[in-house]
Amino acid sequence: MELIDGNKIAADIIAELKTQVAALPGRPPCLALVRVGEDPASVSYVKKKETASASIGITSRMILPPVTITQEELFALIDGLNADPAVDGILVQSPLPKHINEVAVFRRIAAGKDVDGFHTMNLGKLAQEDDTGFVACTPAGIMELLQRSGVSLAGKHVVVLGRSLIVGKPAALLALQRKPWANATVTVCHSQTANLPALTRQADVLIAAIGKPEFVTADMVKPGAVVIDVGVNRVADATKKSGYRLTGDVHFPTVSPLCSKITPVPGGVGPMTVAMLMQNTVKARRQHT
Amino acid sequence: MELIDGNKIAADIIAELKTQVAALPGRPPCLALVRVGEDPASVSYVKKKETASASIGITSRMILPPVTITQEELFALIDGLNADPAVDGILVQSPLPKHINEVAVFRRIAAGKDVDGFHTMNLGKLAQEDDTGFVACTPAGIMELLQRSGVSLAGKHVVVLGRSLIVGKPAALLALQRKPWANATVTVCHSQTANLPALTRQADVLIAAIGKPEFVTADMVKPGAVVIDVGVNRVADATKKSGYRLTGDVHFPTVSPLCSKITPVPGGVGPMTVAMLMQNTVKARRQHT
Repeated sequence: MELIDGNKIAADIIAELKTQVAALPGRPPCLALVRVGEDPASVSYVKKKETASASIGITSRMILPPVTITQEELFALIDGLNADPAVDGILVQSPLPKHINEVAVFRRIAAGKDVDGFHTMNLGKLAQEDDTGFVACTPAGIMELLQRSGVSLAGKHVVVLGRSLIVGKPAALLALQRKPWANATVTVCHSQTANLPALTRQADVLIAAIGKPEFVTADMVKPGAVVIDVGVNRVADATKKSGYRLTGDVHFPTVSPLCSKITPVPGGVGPMTVAMLMQNTVKARRQHT
Repeated sequence: MELIDGNKIAADIIAELKTQVAALPGRPPCLALVRVGEDPASVSYVKKKETASASIGITSRMILPPVTITQEELFALIDGLNADPAVDGILVQSPLPKHINEVAVFRRIAAGKDVDGFHTMNLGKLAQEDDTGFVACTPAGIMELLQRSGVSLAGKHVVVLGRSLIVGKPAALLALQRKPWANATVTVCHSQTANLPALTRQADVLIAAIGKPEFVTADMVKPGAVVIDVGVNRVADATKKSGYRLTGDVHFPTVSPLCSKITPVPGGVGPMTVAMLMQNTVKARRQHT
């Protein structure tokens, strides 16, 4: 069994992007980071994105509206960033307060600045295999992890567990593409799937993104499979100072011995998300030149 | 084995739409039909769409540019129809001449008038389960055939054979939706799939859209399966006056006895395409009110 080291691969990508940014003509890429309110998880995520930007040479612009901002005010704020030629990418950190329609906000961002890849147009371009679009960071990160670990999907059976818009569906569409390293046969399973273990056991590559701690057990995995664990779940653990530990959607102790390769949690898919956001921002800068 | 009668179901939908159109306030829906050149198949398809429109009470506007039209001229023509408040839906018949970029043309049509459902934005909305969009007519027709034949997909395994943008991918996304009649587990297979019969034999519902005549044989189908045959292939046949016969992607004589339900070719999915175009046009009219 081989661990896929997301921290190492993400660091490699960050280093490559730093070199690329240094070689870009004109001003450096600029990423607007919009964080509504003071949710502690959001504060931490946005901080990571700011730090990564700085390390690469991407200018970040922090915009911190209060939690009381109305949807119309947030739209106006986004419209201003859309119109600003100095801004290449716009990220609105989710979750947003309940009085704001998240899908409408993501659709308000100009598709060409939607470095999070959540815009309807970018999802459509992914389905169309139009590489001018932006792919959502988590599924894009999964594909990078596989490619950089030497796992080609061509002719393989990829089983995606979960059909969310930000992971399951785009990961399935990526694996299906007519690219040399894609070209997989793809099954999407979810909470309503009958006889789930019989399906997941067929996977050459299993992508677990169902949001249930340690849901994937050894009986659900074919020996020799590659397992990508997208889950990030907090499980109570009295032995930890914080009172919890992080676990994925895969029961690592029993599943990992079966796998040819597997991502740990933390340190697998997680670090790739920020790296892919940075990659999308550099891509946006190139497109705006 | 029960035949799914696409002609009958399409006629029912046309009749329902006629009633709906008669009850619409204001002017009737208007569909612009753009046919470039004189390709005989295109002439025949567009004629069918014109006839169906007339029978429902939809006004159709025929626009017949010569095969020599440039892409820029076609864009200008589409821009005029986009801006025309009297036009609800715009259909540009494919295939287009080789000097014109088809995807770019489909993307030029205003998403709100794209009754063919080929616009990037409408594909994205399908993935997002946003029902304000338009679904491509063939996959939409497949779902109607299943629903009106009493086949619920919930908890079933749907195997889609083919990953095209106009059938395979949207059909897979529809079957995956969190709708009561959808909610299927979905596998997409294609020309690069290894061990295809083992996968198609798992299908409770098999959607064949691979464009190879009589490709699906009895050994590929589970007894009791529902089979939807999307193929329309011409096969040489000396016993026919025309010199050919139409056949689907399924070897009907050996597969049909195994099925609980199956669509014939012709008379299965085919007639649904025009019915769904009409349904989309009425929907566009309602959205423009």
